[in-house]
Amino acid sequence: MAKEKLVVIGGDAAGMSAASQARRRSKDMEIVVFERSPHTSYAACGIPYFAADLVKEPAKLVARAPEVFRNKMNIDARVRHEVTSIDLEKGSVDFVDLESGNESSESYDKLLIATGASPIVPNLPGVDLPGVHSISTLQSGIACREEIDRIKPRNAVVVGGGYIGIEMAEALLMRGARVTLVEMAPQVMLTLDPDPAARVADRMRKDGIELLLNEPLKAIEAGANGRAAAVITGQNTIPADIVILAIGIRPESRLAEQCGLPLGDRGAIEINARMETPRENVWAAGDCAQCHHLVSNRPFWIALGTVANKHGRIAGINISGGNEEFPGVVGTAITKFNDLEISRTGLSKRELEELTIDYVSATIDSSTRAHYYPGHAPINVTLHAERSSGKLLGVQIVGGPGSGKRIDAAAVALHARLTVADMLHLDLAYAPPFSPVWDPVQIAARVLEAKI
Amino acid sequence: MAKEKLVVIGGDAAGMSAASQARRRSKDMEIVVFERSPHTSYAACGIPYFAADLVKEPAKLVARAPEVFRNKMNIDARVRHEVTSIDLEKGSVDFVDLESGNESSESYDKLLIATGASPIVPNLPGVDLPGVHSISTLQSGIACREEIDRIKPRNAVVVGGGYIGIEMAEALLMRGARVTLVEMAPQVMLTLDPDPAARVADRMRKDGIELLLNEPLKAIEAGANGRAAAVITGQNTIPADIVILAIGIRPESRLAEQCGLPLGDRGAIEINARMETPRENVWAAGDCAQCHHLVSNRPFWIALGTVANKHGRIAGINISGGNEEFPGVVGTAITKFNDLEISRTGLSKRELEELTIDYVSATIDSSTRAHYYPGHAPINVTLHAERSSGKLLGVQIVGGPGSGKRIDAAAVALHARLTVADMLHLDLAYAPPFSPVWDPVQIAARVLEAKI
Repeated sequence: MAKEKLVVIGGDAAGMSAASQARRRSKDMEIVVFERSPHTSYAACGIPYFAADLVKEPAKLVARAPEVFRNKMNIDARVRHEVTSIDLEKGSVDFVDLESGNESSESYDKLLIATGASPIVPNLPGVDLPGVHSISTLQSGIACREEIDRIKPRNAVVVGGGYIGIEMAEALLMRGARVTLVEMAPQVMLTLDPDPAARVADRMRKDGIELLLNEPLKAIEAGANGRAAAVITGQNTIPADIVILAIGIRPESRLAEQCGLPLGDRGAIEINARMETPRENVWAAGDCAQCHHLVSNRPFWIALGTVANKHGRIAGINISGGNEEFPGVVGTAITKFNDLEISRTGLSKRELEELTIDYVSATIDSSTRAHYYPGHAPINVTLHAERSSGKLLGVQIVGGPGSGKRIDAAAVALHARLTVADMLHLDLAYAPPFSPVWDPVQIAARVLEAKI
Repeated sequence: MAKEKLVVIGGDAAGMSAASQARRRSKDMEIVVFERSPHTSYAACGIPYFAADLVKEPAKLVARAPEVFRNKMNIDARVRHEVTSIDLEKGSVDFVDLESGNESSESYDKLLIATGASPIVPNLPGVDLPGVHSISTLQSGIACREEIDRIKPRNAVVVGGGYIGIEMAEALLMRGARVTLVEMAPQVMLTLDPDPAARVADRMRKDGIELLLNEPLKAIEAGANGRAAAVITGQNTIPADIVILAIGIRPESRLAEQCGLPLGDRGAIEINARMETPRENVWAAGDCAQCHHLVSNRPFWIALGTVANKHGRIAGINISGGNEEFPGVVGTAITKFNDLEISRTGLSKRELEELTIDYVSATIDSSTRAHYYPGHAPINVTLHAERSSGKLLGVQIVGGPGSGKRIDAAAVALHARLTVADMLHLDLAYAPPFSPVWDPVQIAARVLEAKI
């Protein structure tokens, strides 16, 4: 009997986690991974910090290079190989070797689609000019970083105020550029409520970012040298030596769609808790695939390294004969702007209103440490709970050093479906260098409990 | 009808939280608080940082002074008044005004005993010499700080390697003393397992603390000036300009015992989840009272500001006609030595063995941030789980900045009775400045899950 063959499309977090897990559990399986970029298993989330020169070498962002997979794990990781189509009936994929241009196909017994997400590039004049960058693959990050090194931009424009936009704005500020961030919405960070988002915006402005809200991108204008020279919004023309397009990402589900696999929320590939598509022996995992949101109890799409790693692990276990389910996510995310830490979990006001959930909210200002302990910083906590039951629905935190990871206690509370009343009793860690005697999350819970 | 009268014995965290809560809920109740020290509502946990001169004024440690309670909250907070006995039959307490020496008594309708904890002072030669300090009340902290300011100790000895001992060792090091810490046990921090405790010890030694383990205190010797001059252990005589006795604390339950109230674990006053003693209308809260441990499901005594505040809140609600229960604690605690953060929750090996619970453990070394992000520091995480069920039983963390408060996610997991398998799925916050892609607590869970 021939060895069972697993083909994985996509060699980053989800794909390589799955391949590694399958290999650990099955010494016999043949495992082939196609990755169109030159890199495997890299930390895409680290790209802004590489652009900022906080990380010096792109190799630092690579957890495991293709050679390691080939030589140490007997995983045939083929970089610069792009899969161009999937044939579900024949059980094979067509691919092209991007170096040689040669086309071929590979049969599979089991297929994992882990094609990730790709940046949304609007169909507007000038978006493909030299000097305009979208941040997605490590390759795109290297190109952006090399250009920053080379041209030393004086004027940088970031389009989009989400996670990548804010992180790239910070990076460009650190590289000495005058940075303008353009956002078409009335606030940055649409995953936050307007009030915490306004705190982020205040801090960005205070630290030197020119922040233009309610300004949609209209075009990017070329200069005499043929490079991007200005960003044109509805209201302004902003000079730019470099432009970062960070208006959003979408699941890279084209291959899945073309072969007839069903797509769900925002075009992500539909999977069950075992990471199975409805087609037998075909799996999907990571940024291209759908999640279950444990708080809304609805399908949800989120592109995050943590989720991709968890998806990959589960897919790898199940592909190699195990049985493990991924219950879902609660919507946790974190970033920072300079030393302002920003985190959120659960549902925001916007999401609660879309779901027509009747909720109550509380927002408090407290301190990261005891008010008398040196280095304490302001922290702002917002809590949302279901009005009828008091069940915790969402938490947002914006504050100084030591604020962000406090979201984890709230995330676990969401997993455990705790009420706000339950939260008052939580035995959270207290000592003056770490917290006020009531943790800020519990101070917010006390205020919210009084309203329920 | 006369107003209902609440008498509170003890004006720190539990007593004043209860009095404040009762006042907020009942405008009519007469509330009298007896506090033998000159201070109310102070942060005893802040005393080491006051000794270290990180906090400049003792007033900074006081959340609310007696005048504030009297003038703004109509709470008759009588400082320097010591209750000497409780008459449960008559419903009254005898007290002495420590300023005038006058004795009197006060009747009550409801009584709350919130007498706190007091340091254990061994019956050994020299323990009451000038220059020997126990840290408990704010008064004791002021006396210690003033002496450090005055004598500028060159040689300091701390006896006891628990939380207060370690914090005072840090403080005295910051004040320029050569510090020796003497501990009779083979490890510091008996609430930790030996291995994490050894990491703390290593760091203390590296940072200049002379650490003497397995050395019981035998005596403190006076010098020519009549002050403490040397600490004598079984093995050594250590010169000392100042000695901190931090060998432990015990519940201050003498008054309760004398009037016949039952005492439980380690002499703490027995109470139910409503903070009621078995005697009607008599309540106890805070460091003098017993807790329920949610992981061991046994009575448990712990003296911590957070618990005292929670106890006080619950007692105040119930005393004023409400109905709220305190489910219990999971044993969370945190401290630091210089920038080494130390936290724990749940049960340690020692506790698990005492309870004869069959458990499995995992210990991992990871990084506080992505390995490529500047400022990442080592973090060591130990997890214990029940062998049969995989239920999480305890977590210990020792690591650099950003390590300590990670214990909160584990504490919530203990409240929610999660298994190690559940922990793998937790949606904890990830971005390179905050965490590796698998949070260190989850890395430990993965290792432990593989053993179960």
